[in-house]
Amino acid sequence: MAKHNDRLRVLRETNRVEAFSDGVFAIAATLLVADLKVPVGIMVPGAIGLWQAILANWPGYLAFALSFMIVVIFWGNHHQMLKHIRYTDPMVLVLNGFILLGIAFVPHVTALLAHYLLDPGRATVATAMYAGTLCAVSLAINLFWDYAARHPDLLDETADSPAVQFHTQQYRLSLGLRVLTVLLAFASVPVCLVMLVMVSLYYLIPRG
Amino acid sequence: MAKHNDRLRVLRETNRVEAFSDGVFAIAATLLVADLKVPVGIMVPGAIGLWQAILANWPGYLAFALSFMIVVIFWGNHHQMLKHIRYTDPMVLVLNGFILLGIAFVPHVTALLAHYLLDPGRATVATAMYAGTLCAVSLAINLFWDYAARHPDLLDETADSPAVQFHTQQYRLSLGLRVLTVLLAFASVPVCLVMLVMVSLYYLIPRG
Amino acid sequence: MAKHNDRLRVLRETNRVEAFSDGVFAIAATLLVADLKVPVGIMVPGAIGLWQAILANWPGYLAFALSFMIVVIFWGNHHQMLKHIRYTDPMVLVLNGFILLGIAFVPHVTALLAHYLLDPGRATVATAMYAGTLCAVSLAINLFWDYAARHPDLLDETADSPAVQFHTQQYRLSLGLRVLTVLLAFASVPVCLVMLVMVSLYYLIPRG
Amino acid sequence: MAKHNDRLRVLRETNRVEAFSDGVFAIAATLLVADLKVPVGIMVPGAIGLWQAILANWPGYLAFALSFMIVVIFWGNHHQMLKHIRYTDPMVLVLNGFILLGIAFVPHVTALLAHYLLDPGRATVATAMYAGTLCAVSLAINLFWDYAARHPDLLDETADSPAVQFHTQQYRLSLGLRVLTVLLAFASVPVCLVMLVMVSLYYLIPRG
Repeated sequence: MAKHNDRLRVLRETNRVEAFSDGVFAIAATLLVADLKVPVGIMVPGAIGLWQAILANWPGYLAFALSFMIVVIFWGNHHQMLKHIRYTDPMVLVLNGFILLGIAFVPHVTALLAHYLLDPGRATVATAMYAGTLCAVSLAINLFWDYAARHPDLLDETADSPAVQFHTQQYRLSLGLRVLTVLLAFASVPVCLVMLVMVSLYYLIPRG
Repeated sequence: MAKHNDRLRVLRETNRVEAFSDGVFAIAATLLVADLKVPVGIMVPGAIGLWQAILANWPGYLAFALSFMIVVIFWGNHHQMLKHIRYTDPMVLVLNGFILLGIAFVPHVTALLAHYLLDPGRATVATAMYAGTLCAVSLAINLFWDYAARHPDLLDETADSPAVQFHTQQYRLSLGLRVLTVLLAFASVPVCLVMLVMVSLYYLIPRG
Repeated sequence: MAKHNDRLRVLRETNRVEAFSDGVFAIAATLLVADLKVPVGIMVPGAIGLWQAILANWPGYLAFALSFMIVVIFWGNHHQMLKHIRYTDPMVLVLNGFILLGIAFVPHVTALLAHYLLDPGRATVATAMYAGTLCAVSLAINLFWDYAARHPDLLDETADSPAVQFHTQQYRLSLGLRVLTVLLAFASVPVCLVMLVMVSLYYLIPRG
Repeated sequence: MAKHNDRLRVLRETNRVEAFSDGVFAIAATLLVADLKVPVGIMVPGAIGLWQAILANWPGYLAFALSFMIVVIFWGNHHQMLKHIRYTDPMVLVLNGFILLGIAFVPHVTALLAHYLLDPGRATVATAMYAGTLCAVSLAINLFWDYAARHPDLLDETADSPAVQFHTQQYRLSLGLRVLTVLLAFASVPVCLVMLVMVSLYYLIPRG
């Protein structure tokens, strides 16, 4: 019992981990807007010129909306995962830090995607960087979960072995799909982007 | 009972949804200041030059204050709506994501409005984009609420049918008014802006 | 009793108001760093040139540290005030919104102060804008508190009349001092800045 | 008893201090991405040019990842420290403000490090500024903890003297190591950066 309490003293609660993580997810999502610039120096005069300039910036708007929803879905998934974690230890902190590092990187690759989406030679590079970042987040989620699954005392008491196994399989499959999207970027940018959306939607399927 | 618990396992609590949403609202509101630039390269020498440059930037200050208060009021309204939601499912997450996507877009259309408010030919475009974004947020709120109203198990147990009906009507009316402001942008920019403020104030009327 | 419950249905709890306000305070404070630019295009070669460029930017670093601590202290004061508020109504939401609007404006006047502090003709303008913004926050705090004091059902049950009177007097005095700092900006910029720090420190004195 | 209650009235709970601090840590970490710019004006045509430009920006990516993980670890450490604090007084607020001031400054020195890491003459300056900022955070943590240790009524009731002594020693040692890293910057930039990572990892060792 005393030993168990000692262990509890070392382990820390997840409340503030959730609060900090929520902050990073919310900021990363909202910072995306900082890359949408007001069009200036428009040649065509009047309202027509501004409408054209706004329409011409569609890759920026598309990348903004895509990344925002992907971050929201990742946040939901992260939330779902943390619900099974009852205690945290330093390794959980670091592994969660890797997940958040990837999420915080999303605004940069979003800006890259928006800037080079219409550049035929470079759209592949930007899309690969974008898909690669999401793949890295998925990898970090797998590392986090694998560590938690190997340390059952970190898990919620309601977490039973079949549920843990189920999560492990789902995260593994999800990582595989994300690796596939990175490869797809080199084959076809539009197909890769559609795939990115579909893999994110897949996350939405409730998994207990 | 077991079935009810299963349902509870699938549904997720709204606490972290609120925390994440609060974050996006607070960041979107505060990021608005990033578009207020320090005036540089002022021609008129001395203090007079700086006062003039600050005064000349009144559309920027007006757009900042207007958007800040509109986001605060939308946040209050969102808060009020979520109070009736007891559980969340993946669809709630996505629909809430659409609301937040619109809110996160506000800094961009605010910058657009500030930049083009004094350009006679283009103020209409900027105002229409601004009113359109708020209209899209209102539409997302309607979609969110309609979904919740059709799934009573998501709702708070104190939510009774008349209250839900009342909310549905209010959100519908609010959306109608917001569509009107978009049309008004093409008739008169000042009238549209006054209307935008009034529709936001209307949100403040408590609705139980 | 039913009437009281109706009133409670209209009034809303302060938890999410605090969460949203904390977000705005934290973001406004942290966004201040965005105005500190990396010195580029340095003429003097080597390490000496970079040290000189960093030292030459002391107004930027001073303004950053000053504003950060002032926002932290305002946050503490806001926290202390909200502790007495048990319920919120739409007017509380709007008045709190005015406080937050002023706080969100601080990064802009901080950048203004940093940019023009060493410009003899314009330092007065920048300092007056800076002191004026803090004065506006103080005014909003007074309006918020006066409204709460006139609506005792919004107040915490432990709030008794002498404590409310004490707060009212303190906030009034604080506003008077802040008006004085705005006037001081036109007499002497350094004296005004020292006064700004001292008025903020005064806020730290616990007031029950 | 009445006196104890008076003291409790003056002292304030740490919940909102944690929420505000979490916000500053999360924003400082996520704002780091704002310094990663999309490469433009690339001379080498096609995909190769973009890959080269991305690779050439490795100091930016390295500084981003380094600072992100350091802020995450400092946050974990701050969290651990605040767990021992039960009440706050105005001095705690100010000392916590100094810790957060240092954290909020991290994006600036990160940008400095990223910009000058490959400039042989100036890398030392940027690294010293970077290590110095982390050292200042460590100093603020020591001041915070020393104050708390001298005011046992601020501490959690489970905090017993050996634990407090242990923390004091650990924070002191950590400060000594951080001073050393600042000096190391002048001897060798790479050794200093490795040392920075190692000192941060040392923070991860649980200390009850």
